[in-house]
Amino acid sequence: MNSQTLQSQVVALGQAARAASRHIAKASTAAKNQALLLAAAALRRDQASLLAANAEDVEQARKKGLDEAFLDRLTLTAKSIESMASGLEQIAALQDPVGEITGLSRRPSGIEVGRMRVPLGVIAIIYEARPNVTADAAGLCLKSGNACILRGGSEALRSNQIIARAMHEGLRGALLPDSVVQVMDFTDRAAVGELITLKGLVDVIVPRGGKGLIERISNEARIPVLKHLDGVCHTFVDASADVSMAVKVADNAKTQRYGTCNTMETLLVHEAIAASVLPPLCDIYRNKGVELRGDEAARRLVPEMKPAEEADWYAEYLAPILAIRIVPSLDAAIDHIARYGSQHTDAILTNDWHNANRFLREVDSSSVMVNTSTRFADGFEYGLGAEIGISTDKLHARGPVGLEGLTSQKFVVLGHGEIRGG
Amino acid sequence: MNSQTLQSQVVALGQAARAASRHIAKASTAAKNQALLLAAAALRRDQASLLAANAEDVEQARKKGLDEAFLDRLTLTAKSIESMASGLEQIAALQDPVGEITGLSRRPSGIEVGRMRVPLGVIAIIYEARPNVTADAAGLCLKSGNACILRGGSEALRSNQIIARAMHEGLRGALLPDSVVQVMDFTDRAAVGELITLKGLVDVIVPRGGKGLIERISNEARIPVLKHLDGVCHTFVDASADVSMAVKVADNAKTQRYGTCNTMETLLVHEAIAASVLPPLCDIYRNKGVELRGDEAARRLVPEMKPAEEADWYAEYLAPILAIRIVPSLDAAIDHIARYGSQHTDAILTNDWHNANRFLREVDSSSVMVNTSTRFADGFEYGLGAEIGISTDKLHARGPVGLEGLTSQKFVVLGHGEIRGG
Repeated sequence: MNSQTLQSQVVALGQAARAASRHIAKASTAAKNQALLLAAAALRRDQASLLAANAEDVEQARKKGLDEAFLDRLTLTAKSIESMASGLEQIAALQDPVGEITGLSRRPSGIEVGRMRVPLGVIAIIYEARPNVTADAAGLCLKSGNACILRGGSEALRSNQIIARAMHEGLRGALLPDSVVQVMDFTDRAAVGELITLKGLVDVIVPRGGKGLIERISNEARIPVLKHLDGVCHTFVDASADVSMAVKVADNAKTQRYGTCNTMETLLVHEAIAASVLPPLCDIYRNKGVELRGDEAARRLVPEMKPAEEADWYAEYLAPILAIRIVPSLDAAIDHIARYGSQHTDAILTNDWHNANRFLREVDSSSVMVNTSTRFADGFEYGLGAEIGISTDKLHARGPVGLEGLTSQKFVVLGHGEIRGG
Repeated sequence: MNSQTLQSQVVALGQAARAASRHIAKASTAAKNQALLLAAAALRRDQASLLAANAEDVEQARKKGLDEAFLDRLTLTAKSIESMASGLEQIAALQDPVGEITGLSRRPSGIEVGRMRVPLGVIAIIYEARPNVTADAAGLCLKSGNACILRGGSEALRSNQIIARAMHEGLRGALLPDSVVQVMDFTDRAAVGELITLKGLVDVIVPRGGKGLIERISNEARIPVLKHLDGVCHTFVDASADVSMAVKVADNAKTQRYGTCNTMETLLVHEAIAASVLPPLCDIYRNKGVELRGDEAARRLVPEMKPAEEADWYAEYLAPILAIRIVPSLDAAIDHIARYGSQHTDAILTNDWHNANRFLREVDSSSVMVNTSTRFADGFEYGLGAEIGISTDKLHARGPVGLEGLTSQKFVVLGHGEIRGG
């Protein structure tokens, strides 16, 4: 496709989304839920054709020589289709954030001022070849009153088109326009570049995927991006921590899953408790095959540890590797996190009320925790119902982003003929 | 200054601000208020030297041939210095948003999850040669726990430095670091370019000034910008409006002040009420010297009106000029606003409950109003205490931005040893 044709096609998608956004913004909760439930039913009914399309996608990807981890994320099963469908039903069951008015109060002039929660408008979601994201992201955008443009990895295009068909069937059944959910079906890489510069037609971009994808999009976008870059999460075991709780929680934070962004990557231990905590904890890590990289003080306690280098404190391993540092104080722990952390999720394990409060207040991360595992940083665990991603940005939404993070608030002013200066 | 020296100086400002941001983020409300009150006292005490420095600024600007409106905005008086000082005292009296925890609730896993309001970090404010903005912006950033870098128009540099000195005196008196408030004192235009690309050191940019300034900064910034571009505000007089209220409110919305962003620029009138509203209203406008530009239907009712052209519907006149259109329905009014509006502030005048609610819900502007004047879109009038600007962005803060708009929320998780999947 030549670049001008491509551009005009992307602009057409954006214009259709903008027009649809006005319809979905004012749609009733009942209509939005009906669309979600009908789409779920269509996905279940079309399971066989979705599996067939997906098998073709996987076949092509295998021919291209993509690796097993890639193929695994691309592959759908009867079980994963069922979980997509029930995911849409769960989104239908969530409270509709749109239209809620809060804080209405009367001002000295007589006007009443409050805030109404409103959709963002048009959301572009750019993700890798994971078809389950298609249903999930479309469902969250729809329920929060937004139109969306979905650009998934090109290797999943056949699967994504079948999923889009189910979403369209749901929308039509609820008398809502198809273009509330659009799957970008031209696979040119340049199309992403067009999409992320569609000022005035796209309101927010949500990239989901590896660091490379997110960095490229943040650098090139001319539209706000809701994203997280790294998850260099810390657990700090304070001097007053309960030793058995510290061992249990620090184990869970590292080993429950290695590849997730809320997995602990660096363990900080107060020097006064290190000798009690590190030896039993490192036994557990060793038995689970976790490679340990420590500073000098840690290596004196657990000699088989490898020496940590400066780069280890910055590392998001996403693997069974853990950096360990012994610190002399809470201040040193907070300073370490400020310097090396990624403002994603950090936890303190302590029995000291004052230190817990200082950590909560002074650590500038999207989630700060006391006495629990960083693995809990998750939309479901937080009660958001579902999440479209985790944001480490400072504006708008921080942490897991659910339906509310896909909305904003406008001021509503109810008057009775008041005039200013009158 | 060569470009490398300039860059390293701007980076140094950013690093100092980042370091200071950690101090001010955890400062007590008492310390922040003390700093504000001491700064106010210093401004009053130094009135003579500030007036002298300002007189030099004005003198230089006059020599450069800058116009009267420019000189007027630049000039300080005893009265405007008093109003700066009392502005800081008013900010001290506002509730501190930082640290507030909301929505703490227990999840099935046992963890308690809530949100804590936190400062954004480092805010860069770029504005024209208006020294009063220096005190105002510094005060709002300080109270909301943020460090700030202030870059005012170079013609106001002497005045801004004296104001900065008063802020520093306040900060020192409260044992807070000077670099919580930094006035950029090198006037190279390129310094702004460096400042708005200081990723990792500056968290948010707030441009205040004309459309040219804001557009340039939005285009070049690599950091989120909190801004409003245009204020093309509408008032729609619905068929059921009270005629005398409509005349009074539409008069106020246009004529109370002409140059403000919340002034009405287009009046939409339902055809069923136009013959009752337009003639008396246009008499008032004519007496106040407002130039009227109408569509054909409006001109049939008020023949001396000039014909409006397509460009008039997009215009932010900021002047005694008003565009007038007669529309057949609420839908036509909403469509007009969606097409030509700037999502700033729009009002409906109506006695119809259903129409009022549709307008509030369907018009996608940062402030939507019923039966009152668009001139009320203002931080003071909304009870925010003060505002750093009005945002027409969709993410984060929309409408007047006060202390809360200069903060964000992080998740806090209080555990008792819970582990995930445990």
